[in-house]
Amino acid sequence: MVHIDYSQLAEKYGTPLYVYDSKQIEDNIRRIARSLNYRHSTMYFAVMCNNHKNILSVIRRNGLGVQINSVHELQLVKKAGFKNSAISFTSTGISTDLMKTLIREGIRINLDSVEEVDKFCTLAQNRKFGVRIRIPKSISARSLQATNTNRHSHIGIEEKDFKSVLKMADAARNSITGVHGYFASNVLEMTPFQHYAPYMCTMASSFPDLEYVNFGSGFGIPYAPGQKAFDIKKILALFALHVKALSHKYDRPIELIIEPGRTILADAGSLLVQITNIKHLNSNKYEIAIDAGYAELARPLLYGSYHAITTVNTTHRQPVNYDIRGNTVLQNDFLGKNRMLEKVREGDYLLIRKVGAYGAVMASGFPGKEIPKQLFL
Amino acid sequence: MVHIDYSQLAEKYGTPLYVYDSKQIEDNIRRIARSLNYRHSTMYFAVMCNNHKNILSVIRRNGLGVQINSVHELQLVKKAGFKNSAISFTSTGISTDLMKTLIREGIRINLDSVEEVDKFCTLAQNRKFGVRIRIPKSISARSLQATNTNRHSHIGIEEKDFKSVLKMADAARNSITGVHGYFASNVLEMTPFQHYAPYMCTMASSFPDLEYVNFGSGFGIPYAPGQKAFDIKKILALFALHVKALSHKYDRPIELIIEPGRTILADAGSLLVQITNIKHLNSNKYEIAIDAGYAELARPLLYGSYHAITTVNTTHRQPVNYDIRGNTVLQNDFLGKNRMLEKVREGDYLLIRKVGAYGAVMASGFPGKEIPKQLFL
Repeated sequence: MVHIDYSQLAEKYGTPLYVYDSKQIEDNIRRIARSLNYRHSTMYFAVMCNNHKNILSVIRRNGLGVQINSVHELQLVKKAGFKNSAISFTSTGISTDLMKTLIREGIRINLDSVEEVDKFCTLAQNRKFGVRIRIPKSISARSLQATNTNRHSHIGIEEKDFKSVLKMADAARNSITGVHGYFASNVLEMTPFQHYAPYMCTMASSFPDLEYVNFGSGFGIPYAPGQKAFDIKKILALFALHVKALSHKYDRPIELIIEPGRTILADAGSLLVQITNIKHLNSNKYEIAIDAGYAELARPLLYGSYHAITTVNTTHRQPVNYDIRGNTVLQNDFLGKNRMLEKVREGDYLLIRKVGAYGAVMASGFPGKEIPKQLFL
Repeated sequence: MVHIDYSQLAEKYGTPLYVYDSKQIEDNIRRIARSLNYRHSTMYFAVMCNNHKNILSVIRRNGLGVQINSVHELQLVKKAGFKNSAISFTSTGISTDLMKTLIREGIRINLDSVEEVDKFCTLAQNRKFGVRIRIPKSISARSLQATNTNRHSHIGIEEKDFKSVLKMADAARNSITGVHGYFASNVLEMTPFQHYAPYMCTMASSFPDLEYVNFGSGFGIPYAPGQKAFDIKKILALFALHVKALSHKYDRPIELIIEPGRTILADAGSLLVQITNIKHLNSNKYEIAIDAGYAELARPLLYGSYHAITTVNTTHRQPVNYDIRGNTVLQNDFLGKNRMLEKVREGDYLLIRKVGAYGAVMASGFPGKEIPKQLFL
């Protein structure tokens, strides 16, 4: 990571300000690519975690494809110069209109339901498509930090329906050439992935025309102190092992696909904020109000998620116990609680860390704010 | 409410579409005004619940003031034609810069902390201001539907600090002329308000220069079936009773202020959406995917809140048990579960009800969408 003078940035561009470090993004991409030790691999960047054009540009320069889930994202990635062959579409509830667009553009698509397969096969013949696999609840992240889990969802097609979708595809001379899976976001545990990898490959082997297994992502990163890094190398090796076995079985190379987002972007972005007021709560405790909150960063209020908060310009002053809250009327809008920080003053700056993914893209400006600015270094 | 042909609107403007009924807004304002049976009353519309210029225009035409909590909202309401005298500012963590702006513009302001009072008194003399009162946790909404409660907050100034803020004000020849209170949003229970009204007036009587008691809002509305309407008439009568007693004590009329938002707007807005896919889950159960979700309406995912969902164009078909989910990759993005609706088809429209407040203003477009359009009838 390059040295960044955040005070200078704050004075030049104002706060709150998302600041991204492109070099860190590229380092992350290379680290994942190196761990993906299998020749027939493809990495799609999960655009949903940050769709800013400058981010997309870094992604494209580094040779990755993009995973999208809406027509709006399709427009964004095309504008950013991605070719149709570098785009993979996976969502739920695809309408007939959107399906027509995706077919016309020849975008790689993974279908979520029997009904979507039916729709596709009515609209197109002599085409390929993938199917999303229903991941059983037994393969589920249990940690509190995991978000968007499969506990209450009916995403994907159940194994019992594979025969009927194969039949639909066959009748329309389409082939089901891939499977896609996903069970949760921001998972740090190894165990669910250890069950997930063989499960996906077992499901995949129901499809005679198989060309790829798309494991999606869900790879977590350590946000809170004491959390161990997610061992992506180990998990990717496991994916490769199972896909190699599958290739052997099919007697042709099966493509291994992953769709990381958070792992590439999270630690490459910080939210630079200014302290607007410090309220004395009791002898040892202060509440810092900053010029940002839910309006700019939804994760703490939405998920209760932890983000490290650090001071800018170390002062070697005595650490003090602070709660850090948004300066809004939302009473529960805290960015962090019981954080030991070197004593700060009104006007000082703070950095909220690891917000490159699911930060700016979730900003609503609520309440009473505008969407925050983003700066790319 | 006027009759609205939603199918026609959907075809003309596209979906997802927020649709507002101005007449309903005006009816709501009149109903509250009629319940506010006290001569020296002021109603500020809580801009945070919806700051669209057309809404602000209806509010202004109906003679209400506005309650704002940020400099961005200040710009919006001034642009919408509100005079400074019709604006009240209440927030937390007000920076020195923002404080200067508010003082320069002569905006009515309620200060949240001893530190803010100190800041104000350093910057201005011979001025009036109000203070926010710390509401004890014993006065708290207990219902699940209440949001933004005071359970974990340190909003407002504690009674033990009243003497010191009075002294600061006195030293700068400023007067503390009002108190402001707030303990939660969307409260349906009467009991907390029954304790809150006398508590506020007791706290207010510590301030010899008192001119107003601002009760804020927090008034709930019934979202889910079987919920009783919040008896706003009864609560406003209680507020008036206590403020009248205070007026008697001070031997001058004390102003009673309320700041409703949801009560004015919620049931005047619907989100019009289109069904993009219907997935068969099991013999009796279907999952509807629509072209909206967390991207357009955050409340269900953020708060677990209930919104009635109705079909457009009654067909007298048999009711079916539906889950209604956003067509995104967010697995837990459900707009409603186990809703009995007349059998619907892909392409049909649905209405998500009572989203006029805290609907569009909280929309982030996440994941992969744009901010929804809004239509004003």
